[in-house]
Amino acid sequence: MAIRERVFNTIISCFKRHGAEVIDTPVFELKVPFARYLAMNKITNIKRYHIAKVYRRDNPAMTRGRYREFYQCDFDIAGHFDPMIPDAECLKIVHEILSVLQLGDFLIKVNDRRILNGVFAVCGIPDSLFHSTCSTVDKLNKATWEDVKNEMVGEKGLSPEAADRIGEYVRLHGGLGLIEQLDQDPKLSQNKLAREGLGDMKLLFEYLTLFGIADKISFDLSLARGLDYYTGVIYEAVVLQPLNAHREEPVSMGSVAGGGRYDKLVGMFDPKGRKVPCVGVSIGIERLFSIMEQEVEASKEKIRTTETQVLVATPQKNFLDVKLKLISELWDSGIKAEMLYKKNPKLLNQLQYCEDTGIPLTAIIGEQELKDGVVKLRVVASREEVNIPREKLAEEIRRRLES
Amino acid sequence: MAIRERVFNTIISCFKRHGAEVIDTPVFELKVPFARYLAMNKITNIKRYHIAKVYRRDNPAMTRGRYREFYQCDFDIAGHFDPMIPDAECLKIVHEILSVLQLGDFLIKVNDRRILNGVFAVCGIPDSLFHSTCSTVDKLNKATWEDVKNEMVGEKGLSPEAADRIGEYVRLHGGLGLIEQLDQDPKLSQNKLAREGLGDMKLLFEYLTLFGIADKISFDLSLARGLDYYTGVIYEAVVLQPLNAHREEPVSMGSVAGGGRYDKLVGMFDPKGRKVPCVGVSIGIERLFSIMEQEVEASKEKIRTTETQVLVATPQKNFLDVKLKLISELWDSGIKAEMLYKKNPKLLNQLQYCEDTGIPLTAIIGEQELKDGVVKLRVVASREEVNIPREKLAEEIRRRLES
Repeated sequence: MAIRERVFNTIISCFKRHGAEVIDTPVFELKVPFARYLAMNKITNIKRYHIAKVYRRDNPAMTRGRYREFYQCDFDIAGHFDPMIPDAECLKIVHEILSVLQLGDFLIKVNDRRILNGVFAVCGIPDSLFHSTCSTVDKLNKATWEDVKNEMVGEKGLSPEAADRIGEYVRLHGGLGLIEQLDQDPKLSQNKLAREGLGDMKLLFEYLTLFGIADKISFDLSLARGLDYYTGVIYEAVVLQPLNAHREEPVSMGSVAGGGRYDKLVGMFDPKGRKVPCVGVSIGIERLFSIMEQEVEASKEKIRTTETQVLVATPQKNFLDVKLKLISELWDSGIKAEMLYKKNPKLLNQLQYCEDTGIPLTAIIGEQELKDGVVKLRVVASREEVNIPREKLAEEIRRRLES
Repeated sequence: MAIRERVFNTIISCFKRHGAEVIDTPVFELKVPFARYLAMNKITNIKRYHIAKVYRRDNPAMTRGRYREFYQCDFDIAGHFDPMIPDAECLKIVHEILSVLQLGDFLIKVNDRRILNGVFAVCGIPDSLFHSTCSTVDKLNKATWEDVKNEMVGEKGLSPEAADRIGEYVRLHGGLGLIEQLDQDPKLSQNKLAREGLGDMKLLFEYLTLFGIADKISFDLSLARGLDYYTGVIYEAVVLQPLNAHREEPVSMGSVAGGGRYDKLVGMFDPKGRKVPCVGVSIGIERLFSIMEQEVEASKEKIRTTETQVLVATPQKNFLDVKLKLISELWDSGIKAEMLYKKNPKLLNQLQYCEDTGIPLTAIIGEQELKDGVVKLRVVASREEVNIPREKLAEEIRRRLES
């Protein structure tokens, strides 16, 4: 639970830093209920996040399916805006969350549905096969090109030549250089959709460079994403290697976030078909939980289950009233404080409690301190002790724990 | 949702300040699953809080009951400790939450099951009628003494004399003075349970005085609380009058928190009957939501739906890249910042956006500011403007919004 909370807090504070509000759409959440919500309430402009416990059937084949609880986490920006500014913010958000969580190295792959469609068109794939070709291309991150080509030719009915032409494009990945190369591509530059997509991709990379995160972004033509409702830029973040693992080569831990632009979904729910362009990202929060849990297990790091900042302690007998008054002052100043629920605990037991539970500071008050109007603040890790004027104690605790 | 979050945050940060951790017991939460959890896991010592969405049947009489979602919120301290120290902390927590939420005046009634049992015993009520007499006494906060007496005599089979004797006790309420008066009571002081209860009540009031909250606490002999599992101190908080209401006399908004000591519940689930003393409180979080919603409606106060601290704005054309870089710096410093998703918005529109959404500060960067390495920080309410060195901007925003 402490880990889950750490993940939640990181994500929520990031969303809030970006000015998102929280609205409550019904359970069984995906982009679709959000789109319906916007259409029903005629909302044309919103930035929101949503974290929900949803229930999904564990095994739909069973007559009496058990429902498993899991979390889902979405961030979306809806509205008519200048191109790629909200899209860049979504990528910045993914970058912030993965950086703060310190899961190790990661990569955010981006592509654009229009570029993919352009590629299919110039390779001579009929419109009717775009969708199924798309889902085959999406397998390139797990399968070899040979396997993908076999599926295209054997199952999807593409000619080997068309498949090879696609293969030359979808195995490309890079940055601004690749965008410019494709912009000069004699065939692709003739395709209107591809040109639009490449123009926006260039703009996106400009903004990502200004955000200082372009080095983690890879323009990857094999990224297709299964869902049908994306209309423009699409992206997916993969964690490459856990920080504390002693492995010899980078291992992909799989996708931890993904999303893209879906400009037509809201219009489908609006009686008059009014469109509200949207771009969003889903955070794979359950995947993040399990990666973080693996990290913690591997590192043998002890996870604290409370956030207590200081233990109020005394070496004196019959000092319960003094401790109660002091802890009350700390609580009222917003400090997370505990004391042992004993009238006369031994000082050693009080110090041991800090060691056992990871409380970083001890505020010790005895007869001398009481007389002098000070409190002895002890740093548990270093055993350093310093007298602090009582009225400055809360401030000093805050100062020490923030630095 | 913004209100709900405000309530949650207040409550959770209070619990954390008191060093509680969060554990996950199954849904349909009450004290009983918590007690079972402790017994099953052989936990003898914990301080925890739990906030859960639970589902309760709206109308159990219907064949196909619809389930209604609502929140439940519990805080509990389990373990063998010196008397009344954790009990006093539970009351301090209720006091902190109700104070921070600023719902107006409130009162926390306390009593002790052992004192009530002593009262019933010295009034000549047979043991077998204690429980049903208890639930009748509990109605005294809504019904008159006459009605309560009629129920005791007519329905519960008490003699009118016994009812009158009870009536003399249960209509008493006060503070330390009342405790001492009952301690001297010729009949009650002969009863062992009542003496124990009064001794602990005195100790409790000492601790509450040290916490500085005794003025909000009323020792009230009519408080009985329905639930059977309480074994010692019991309490209930009532909100007396909303802060912004222009009413002529205090009106009770009903109970918003309640709890007490239940020392025998864990033992019932332990195969060897090992007891773990517990004391806890349930926060009536749905009641708090609705009181706060009423307050807000009455005050016409505008509730912000985001927490954005600053809008990054410019009077210049073609300054999008400058704004993107600046907002990125702010996000990375932990500032909640927004900008309009337009390449060239008018300054007036940017300032208006702050007014409309309640963003308190605007960070304005134009050519001159860029050249001078400063940002013009504008306070939306006062229109005061001051130039801040760019590298100090995040710090200055934080400083201004905290003071």
